[in-house]
Amino acid sequence: MGNYKPLTKREAIEYVKQVQGIFSDNADLECEEIGDGNLNLVFHICDKNSDQSIIIKQALDHVRIVESWPLTKERVRFEYKAMDIQDKLTNGMVPKVYKFDEELALIVMEDLSDMTVMRKGLIAGEKYPHFADQISTFLSKTIFYTSDLYLDPKEKKEKVKEFINPELCKITEDLVFTDPYYDAETNNINPELRPYLENEFWKKAELHKEVTILKEKFMTKAQSLIHGDLHTGSIFINQEAIKVFDAEFAFYGPSGFDIGAVIGNLILNYASWTGKKVSREFKNDYRNYLLETIKNIWNEFEMKFRSFWDKHAHEVIKAVDGYQDAYLTQLLQDSIGMGGCKTMRRCIGLAHVEDLDGIEDLKKRAEAQIFALKIGEAMVIRRKKLNSIEDFIKIVQKITNQEDA
Amino acid sequence: MGNYKPLTKREAIEYVKQVQGIFSDNADLECEEIGDGNLNLVFHICDKNSDQSIIIKQALDHVRIVESWPLTKERVRFEYKAMDIQDKLTNGMVPKVYKFDEELALIVMEDLSDMTVMRKGLIAGEKYPHFADQISTFLSKTIFYTSDLYLDPKEKKEKVKEFINPELCKITEDLVFTDPYYDAETNNINPELRPYLENEFWKKAELHKEVTILKEKFMTKAQSLIHGDLHTGSIFINQEAIKVFDAEFAFYGPSGFDIGAVIGNLILNYASWTGKKVSREFKNDYRNYLLETIKNIWNEFEMKFRSFWDKHAHEVIKAVDGYQDAYLTQLLQDSIGMGGCKTMRRCIGLAHVEDLDGIEDLKKRAEAQIFALKIGEAMVIRRKKLNSIEDFIKIVQKITNQEDA
Repeated sequence: MGNYKPLTKREAIEYVKQVQGIFSDNADLECEEIGDGNLNLVFHICDKNSDQSIIIKQALDHVRIVESWPLTKERVRFEYKAMDIQDKLTNGMVPKVYKFDEELALIVMEDLSDMTVMRKGLIAGEKYPHFADQISTFLSKTIFYTSDLYLDPKEKKEKVKEFINPELCKITEDLVFTDPYYDAETNNINPELRPYLENEFWKKAELHKEVTILKEKFMTKAQSLIHGDLHTGSIFINQEAIKVFDAEFAFYGPSGFDIGAVIGNLILNYASWTGKKVSREFKNDYRNYLLETIKNIWNEFEMKFRSFWDKHAHEVIKAVDGYQDAYLTQLLQDSIGMGGCKTMRRCIGLAHVEDLDGIEDLKKRAEAQIFALKIGEAMVIRRKKLNSIEDFIKIVQKITNQEDA
Repeated sequence: MGNYKPLTKREAIEYVKQVQGIFSDNADLECEEIGDGNLNLVFHICDKNSDQSIIIKQALDHVRIVESWPLTKERVRFEYKAMDIQDKLTNGMVPKVYKFDEELALIVMEDLSDMTVMRKGLIAGEKYPHFADQISTFLSKTIFYTSDLYLDPKEKKEKVKEFINPELCKITEDLVFTDPYYDAETNNINPELRPYLENEFWKKAELHKEVTILKEKFMTKAQSLIHGDLHTGSIFINQEAIKVFDAEFAFYGPSGFDIGAVIGNLILNYASWTGKKVSREFKNDYRNYLLETIKNIWNEFEMKFRSFWDKHAHEVIKAVDGYQDAYLTQLLQDSIGMGGCKTMRRCIGLAHVEDLDGIEDLKKRAEAQIFALKIGEAMVIRRKKLNSIEDFIKIVQKITNQEDA
């Protein structure tokens, strides 16, 4: 990787000109750098003659996001390899890749800026009636077909090896499963929330223990090739389709982590309406839509997963009475537990979400954060009693009624 | 590995002469090949002048033990690397290694033929009062210091990668967790046992399901660097010391698998006395000794493991109230469950144990096998209710009383 250098806008244009089959020879290319500049450069390159456009995502070398985490540019390789597998399994539910350049640590890919980042859509109160169907397809296919249920055990273990991704996992281990549960320096705390953390949240010994059990599962359970960061900011959406992106956290981990990330981020949006100036009618309607979506995601996931299993699982696995039910119950419980951790970290940890941080009044923001923390806590503590997604929906409704009372 | 060839006895002698620091120049070397010849060549080379001796263990290339399992000679690398780690962690509880030769797929190691293979000692009714202390040291050190509790997460993940060992794991997946639970071709079935299997054992749906859950744990839970085949035939013993050998199955797996292997093999010996011509007094006394040993192994393991944790676990882990207790309860349950699978496979599967197969009368052997299967079944089915090793001992005693009644 001796020839790595961060590209300038001009160099980015020169670079794509040499990639076959993207732009025609008479293209008049224009380039903007649209990344946040911390971890990656993101070049948007557009042909003024044809309106065709592409994205170049280039990793910055040896970024430090926290003192103890150097991020090498190898992460682009994980992203590329995971996208390739996800693309084949889901028939194109990820951005099209035109070129992966390991030396320059970049991926040239489809420009999807005509779609919406789902988080923004949810914040605007948009509804996506096909989302449950779409994301459950993505989840069920990627989770089932990369697991030991389907793959030859040797091939699966080679993939585990290929996707050992310590740097990116460390970020999750610390930011999701460790730091939010004590007064860590990395945390980003709304001063109005601090009293609740100090007087209540950080004293919850049972919660801290259960989160640590889930952390161990994250660190040891090599179940499926997961996306690893599947929040609503990693999904482009419109009324027709979704595209899942930013797969650099991909590794072999517990399958429930991706499902939980989606559910947890819908819960964060659910909680955020507490702090917003909208009518009670709108709020109730939108929240019902979100809960209905969560219910449909799990139920459609389960239906699809069972059908893949019945068709394509190893014969010795299919022969085991009751194992499919046991597997799915465990997966539901893992998903909700992991989702609880993903919900809580966004209220306390380093990286927040716009759903909540968009609430400018810090007192109101703290109210919404506490509401989200209470649901997150219940997700972790009560996960082992769950037998269906409806059990979970009831828990959320009960906490909501207490909040509203 | 282009220069690989199986050595002749003469070549084995020439080979060790060139390894520095083993034999003196005027040694008069004699060589015997003492392996069973299926998987490995084992040369015992002795200096007639000094009585010094060594072992060369050389892997045969591309062995097929069952049609679908080719065993490449790379397994020697796993054995060597695991021995090296075990040696450092346990201060010499494995045979000393004089040389590892990757090209020839061999290890030159300490000759321990003055010690006894533990299985033979147990079959002869020997007692080893220090064994619980010794093996609990081996287990607690190797399990704790290779886990995420102690290692830097990045270093641990690199080790997981280094020890991805699909070929040897496949043997365990099939022979321990799959084939014994149906009428598989690989099984090796005492005709007197067959009616019990057909009429009862193979119809136990709950057992089959729970074994499959344990199989999934074996395939996905990368918790510690385990030996992977720690039965009493992999332990040299005398009244002073133990040496653990045959580590080619080593990989990152569930920590309970090694503990369970030891306990399961003590249970196999425990069951075997049912079929043997010994006095009731001897039998009861020896069985009490075995149960006492099992109890001490776990309790000493737990004590040592907790002390390593208190001294050397990551600070963020030490800070979690109740996590150590939860971790150890889970580990006990995993160990007993895994041990149950190890017990049952030796009665039905391809590879048996001399404890039981030494019973020449096939009817009596079947009685002992059924007794072992009943304990094995209880280990799997009742593992989740266990809170202490004493709970388990009571289960064994109850089954024994029913058997004797």
